[in-house]
Amino acid sequence: MSEKRVVVALGHQALGTDFPGQYKAVHSSVRVLADLIEEGCQLIITHSNAPQVGLIHAALNEYAKNHESSNAPMSICSSMSQGFIGYDIQNMLRTELISRGIYRTVSTIITQVVVDPYDDAFYHPIKVIGRYLTREEADAEEAKGNYVVEEPGKGFRRIVASPRPVDIVEIDAINALVKAGQIVIAGGGGGIPVLKQPHRLKSASAIVEKDLTAGKLADLTDADLLMILTSEEQVCIHYNTENRQPLGHISAAQARTYIDDGEFDEKGMLPKMEASVNFVSQKAGRQAVITSIDHAVEALHGEAGTIIS
Amino acid sequence: MSEKRVVVALGHQALGTDFPGQYKAVHSSVRVLADLIEEGCQLIITHSNAPQVGLIHAALNEYAKNHESSNAPMSICSSMSQGFIGYDIQNMLRTELISRGIYRTVSTIITQVVVDPYDDAFYHPIKVIGRYLTREEADAEEAKGNYVVEEPGKGFRRIVASPRPVDIVEIDAINALVKAGQIVIAGGGGGIPVLKQPHRLKSASAIVEKDLTAGKLADLTDADLLMILTSEEQVCIHYNTENRQPLGHISAAQARTYIDDGEFDEKGMLPKMEASVNFVSQKAGRQAVITSIDHAVEALHGEAGTIIS
Repeated sequence: MSEKRVVVALGHQALGTDFPGQYKAVHSSVRVLADLIEEGCQLIITHSNAPQVGLIHAALNEYAKNHESSNAPMSICSSMSQGFIGYDIQNMLRTELISRGIYRTVSTIITQVVVDPYDDAFYHPIKVIGRYLTREEADAEEAKGNYVVEEPGKGFRRIVASPRPVDIVEIDAINALVKAGQIVIAGGGGGIPVLKQPHRLKSASAIVEKDLTAGKLADLTDADLLMILTSEEQVCIHYNTENRQPLGHISAAQARTYIDDGEFDEKGMLPKMEASVNFVSQKAGRQAVITSIDHAVEALHGEAGTIIS
Repeated sequence: MSEKRVVVALGHQALGTDFPGQYKAVHSSVRVLADLIEEGCQLIITHSNAPQVGLIHAALNEYAKNHESSNAPMSICSSMSQGFIGYDIQNMLRTELISRGIYRTVSTIITQVVVDPYDDAFYHPIKVIGRYLTREEADAEEAKGNYVVEEPGKGFRRIVASPRPVDIVEIDAINALVKAGQIVIAGGGGGIPVLKQPHRLKSASAIVEKDLTAGKLADLTDADLLMILTSEEQVCIHYNTENRQPLGHISAAQARTYIDDGEFDEKGMLPKMEASVNFVSQKAGRQAVITSIDHAVEALHGEAGTIIS
């Protein structure tokens, strides 16, 4: 039996929010990843990075301020977060696999994702980065041309645009490893967003939604399944009402209707549903599933989660 | 004509020491890398990371102190430095190649390097990390079991062991990309040092000499040439005397004699010479060259540098 090629997107729950938290969370998440591999999946793993990149960004820029050195642009922080989250996953997944008698190379590819400079998202930033700021710090960010929002009673936060991924720069490297039967970690944090300028890839001060990058990765690696692991077992419609209804097996057309009806939150299920619908709509036989990490194996067998075909 | 497989090790001169410095230095270094590719080399690129990992380490740990969050172990800082130096090299080398009409995938593999827990180096730490410390900070480091040295008149610095690389954990991933004809960046900063414990790879608070990792990488990718780029065009014997004599073409046996005679500094040319001798001694037909980045292309043609055959 040939392996099922699966792109798994890990959310914050699977990764923790600080160094010891990440170690603990990844230690537990790799067991589920190993279960999926034992069930016959070839995995391409991608992941979020918001708390990690926020911490790196805050630490480097605070250090720069205190020591009169240079600020770290988001692209640098993002590449650092890919390095270190990837390292933890590849290190611990390898251990988990070997303890089960499975010898398979796991590695991380630092990944850039091309975004469109004319993406509407650049006029409508939504992604929060870093810690809460004081009014003075918020003013300083705005003076630099950055966007800031106030969260009443809590403080200010910097926000950046979240453009769509158009292409994955290192896709040939990822596919070479997939072809060699290896396990690849790629596109972490949605990838480092870059703008194509004639020959050059200029880094963009933005954060690409990791679920959309996961969908793009699944498409470009020609995966059979896109598995988005989040905090809830199933996606619901009428979410904040008493008619709340979890979704089981649905078609891409149904999912599209719910999206158009505005059933999903822009910061919650919407990008996951969009990534899923885009992925399954592009080729027959593809599936997408959105579920929690605890239900990943059941969802693989069609027995849990929201499954879009 | 088939390509010559070359492992290139970039030193600090090729990478800069802070964010803007790195951008500028890498921008210039990738031109030389592209020249080598145009000359028919398939490159596997590795690099140092001391100033970068020092900055990351200092920033994260200062932030942890100020915000009562967790310290970042060296392994995390090292994986971050691989991510971000790799990103800069892959981004800029791609641009340089495309501007010359060469379309070739360049990517970074986050790399762990196995070290031996019984390596003598653990009893004899030599690698300086981070900024200068005050006496109080130095005492605090020593209380944690870390080693510190005083540099008279300048302050204290933390030092860690520099064990030899025994194996490269992600070598199969690196070789899959090499086999696919791609350009790979790997083993940055000497790799993240790990100790093999039954199944597990435990991170070690150490720094592997990047030149020795470069030699190991050249061996395990079966390269034709190991090219170590440093600040000087040639290695010299009788370095600090009036009889100073630069070395041109020499045999591995000659090089070994000079090493045994104590001609080279432990923090300078010694690891470069050792890596070169080890690499060429393991298989017939191999060459190693030590030179400056400005002489890399001439050295490829045997017309500059110290060449060990």
